[in-house]
Amino acid sequence: MTGAEVLVKTLLASGVDTVFANPGTSEMHFVAALDRHPEMRCVLCLFEGGVTGAADGYARMTGRPAGTLLHLGPGFGNGWANLHNARKGASPMVNVVGDHAGYHLRYDAPLTADLDGVVGSVSHWVRRVADADGLAEDGAAAVRAARSNGGQVATLILPADTAWGDSTAAPATAPEPAPLHRPDPARVVAAAAALTEPGAVLMLGGAALHGPLAEVVGRIAAHTGCRLMTQFFAARIDRGEGAVAIEQLPYPVEGAVAALETARHLVCVGEPPPVAFFAYPGLPSTPEPAGATIDRLCPAEWDVAWTLEEIARAAGVRESVVPARIERVRPALPEGQLDADKVGRVLARFLPEGALVVNEALTAGPGIWPHVDRAVQHTRVNNTGGSIGQALPTTIGVAVACPDRPVVTVSGDGSAMYQVQSLWTLAREKLDVTVLIMSNGGYRILHGELDHLGLPPAGQNASAMFDIAEPGLDWVALAQGHGVPGERVETGEELAAALDTAASTEGPFLIEVML
Amino acid sequence: MTGAEVLVKTLLASGVDTVFANPGTSEMHFVAALDRHPEMRCVLCLFEGGVTGAADGYARMTGRPAGTLLHLGPGFGNGWANLHNARKGASPMVNVVGDHAGYHLRYDAPLTADLDGVVGSVSHWVRRVADADGLAEDGAAAVRAARSNGGQVATLILPADTAWGDSTAAPATAPEPAPLHRPDPARVVAAAAALTEPGAVLMLGGAALHGPLAEVVGRIAAHTGCRLMTQFFAARIDRGEGAVAIEQLPYPVEGAVAALETARHLVCVGEPPPVAFFAYPGLPSTPEPAGATIDRLCPAEWDVAWTLEEIARAAGVRESVVPARIERVRPALPEGQLDADKVGRVLARFLPEGALVVNEALTAGPGIWPHVDRAVQHTRVNNTGGSIGQALPTTIGVAVACPDRPVVTVSGDGSAMYQVQSLWTLAREKLDVTVLIMSNGGYRILHGELDHLGLPPAGQNASAMFDIAEPGLDWVALAQGHGVPGERVETGEELAAALDTAASTEGPFLIEVML
Repeated sequence: MTGAEVLVKTLLASGVDTVFANPGTSEMHFVAALDRHPEMRCVLCLFEGGVTGAADGYARMTGRPAGTLLHLGPGFGNGWANLHNARKGASPMVNVVGDHAGYHLRYDAPLTADLDGVVGSVSHWVRRVADADGLAEDGAAAVRAARSNGGQVATLILPADTAWGDSTAAPATAPEPAPLHRPDPARVVAAAAALTEPGAVLMLGGAALHGPLAEVVGRIAAHTGCRLMTQFFAARIDRGEGAVAIEQLPYPVEGAVAALETARHLVCVGEPPPVAFFAYPGLPSTPEPAGATIDRLCPAEWDVAWTLEEIARAAGVRESVVPARIERVRPALPEGQLDADKVGRVLARFLPEGALVVNEALTAGPGIWPHVDRAVQHTRVNNTGGSIGQALPTTIGVAVACPDRPVVTVSGDGSAMYQVQSLWTLAREKLDVTVLIMSNGGYRILHGELDHLGLPPAGQNASAMFDIAEPGLDWVALAQGHGVPGERVETGEELAAALDTAASTEGPFLIEVML
Repeated sequence: MTGAEVLVKTLLASGVDTVFANPGTSEMHFVAALDRHPEMRCVLCLFEGGVTGAADGYARMTGRPAGTLLHLGPGFGNGWANLHNARKGASPMVNVVGDHAGYHLRYDAPLTADLDGVVGSVSHWVRRVADADGLAEDGAAAVRAARSNGGQVATLILPADTAWGDSTAAPATAPEPAPLHRPDPARVVAAAAALTEPGAVLMLGGAALHGPLAEVVGRIAAHTGCRLMTQFFAARIDRGEGAVAIEQLPYPVEGAVAALETARHLVCVGEPPPVAFFAYPGLPSTPEPAGATIDRLCPAEWDVAWTLEEIARAAGVRESVVPARIERVRPALPEGQLDADKVGRVLARFLPEGALVVNEALTAGPGIWPHVDRAVQHTRVNNTGGSIGQALPTTIGVAVACPDRPVVTVSGDGSAMYQVQSLWTLAREKLDVTVLIMSNGGYRILHGELDHLGLPPAGQNASAMFDIAEPGLDWVALAQGHGVPGERVETGEELAAALDTAASTEGPFLIEVML
């Protein structure tokens, strides 16, 4: 059996049954091995940013790592930005990146590069496979690493000769990760007590924002009176009717400062202390008020579930305590020319129950989400690492992970262009996705940032770098080019009709929303 | 004056007058400084792979570095693959990559990453700016580094607070690079003598493939009887009527072995010894026959011009010697359904004099280039590092560099999808470019590679990763979506008519060639 086939069998035996891929020649034996195992689902993306962003989305919804298949240094480089987002969001992932055969590297062929360097700059765990016999153990170790510490980016560098070499080792199964680190119980007890004090905030991330753990934190807040907060970019959060009410810190640092004005003590579980997205001259790097104390009780890579349960126990929270939940608000259907607020209201009316909502609406977001947050129950997935262009790739992954849930993606036009090829995979895989492109003809956020920094308004060169309205992008044509039907809308009525069309269309549908 | 403005003035004073850009918040003070200097041309690309590929193309045609403007780790990561190509092609380039303000890094904001790691994995030269006062020297050093050793990728990491800080230092001008290393004159004399022996091959790269140095090597060959060769992927080579005849090694290793069958001695100038693009079990890593000797006389980063002139002098080559030149062949206009060979014939008839031809036709190339090579005089630019998706970004750069020369780009469909957003910049800058997309519905080359490796034909999973025909890409719609007019052609007559239309269209025009 080739080393490649041992690796495929090891991945399957370890619960990795989906691979997002864009292979090349050095991965051909791995491809051939995948070909012998149709029980492994292989999803092609036309750019590696799509591959890694899809694996990130898949991990967020399943909690399990997908595999990725990448081609040498450039293939990995193309996937770097969404690996950064995955790393920041603690998404488990197993990257298999091919390399030249070991004996070929000394000749410095065109595709030879500092592969270990670029891989190491974004992976939590890296191993270069030494020989075919080691691949069972290496593959199992990669899956284990991906599952460790709450979710990691694990990368296996697979030289072609280890893939095509004969292996005498039997396929392996990934061993259990080491138990997660837990905070000192005395610190947990102290934190639970502190949460009952005025100005207490429980800062949450990771698994605390959805499902059963969100219920736990909801009960903690109802019992202790603390606020529940998360930072602007949560990897996955339950929203809509019935979801536990967790405040999101605003993106602008001034807004975050205002939101934390009354905070005296922050207990961070599954989330680092709050930080401004960027530094601005004269503004603080962190938004908490002077004198507020911060307890980094449980970082994301520790045992968040245990910590929250222990806080609840120490605080004496009963199961019968009822968390504050989001109540549904049904906005009236807005008419006429759209703005972000109106988009939010239309979307709030039409959002399907149980939808997955992928968010990369930067300037339009503050208008949209306050409405959608109070729609039917749904899950929102956000950009975690600030590398834009994540929405379409992540959409692939969440849709593959949850074939029974409708997906609605809302992205700015500038962001969506980064990995626009991802539209094709939506069509290829017939994924039930509605993509809303907020078409405002530019990187609108950057105009705001100039102002925010006290700089003059954009002149010739700044406008040349911020505005994309000349020529205008035709998103309906772009969608069609990728095999995705679409429509352009300008009014509330048109958006409502287009959402109806999207809902009754099998596979993906794109709506270009003119703002 | 801000550090950012000192940097802009230093770049301008050092001859860098074009910046390909995709900025973000951390680069806003640099953007504001560019805004005060409209003599710096700023070209926006909608993805950073476009930025770096464009700078590569610009450098190939001007011999001078362009600047790039990139946003933190993810922006640099997105540009990595085309930086790899630029590095392999020895294109000078000055990357300015913004980072968070130094004091903000400790808070691990979402966009904080191992920026130094990813930058270092592909740059020849890196400097992290320490303070605003140092920016004049840092900027000048970056330009000098880009110009050193025959062309390098130089990256300046620009923390936001060094850009917005006040600088007391005056803008600087880049000092001259250190003189290029030269081979031992005795070795040059020996090499010149060896070139007169049977089976001698002069392996060439870099500046030896175009312009005055190509004339020198042409005379050397005419005088000594040696063969002139270059590897498959030359950064820039003169082709067509009157160009010095230089053989290109075929891409498949078996073809390269056959082409070098009679070679006994290879003298490499500006080019590493030949190497197979990939390793294949049972096939050699290098194509020269057993017993052939290889003289690595002058690597690309040494003084290629001096070395070639010295070879000519040592061999006693007279100025009056006439090189063997490519003669023009005018193919008959092929009719009916197109294949690669017919595309080559049509293109050979219609290619405008002095055109820049950008090549990323992988499987179609062997059919096309033998015809186009014998068309009117032109320059061909190829993928250098094997990272696909380079053609459209590079097209931006060569067209910006040479506004008076028509550009014809030929790319496979799979390759062109990688950085398809680059089409928009062609329209934005109204560049006179004809883009031919060889639409064969897949990564055709990978089917060939399975066979090449002795693996079974593609089954379900391999086909899922190689074929992009379901759904089919509609390239005319994709072009239109980016603001580029286009047409689909199926026959020789239609291609001829479309090339006519393209020639009479201002700005870019895309032709989808159905194969």
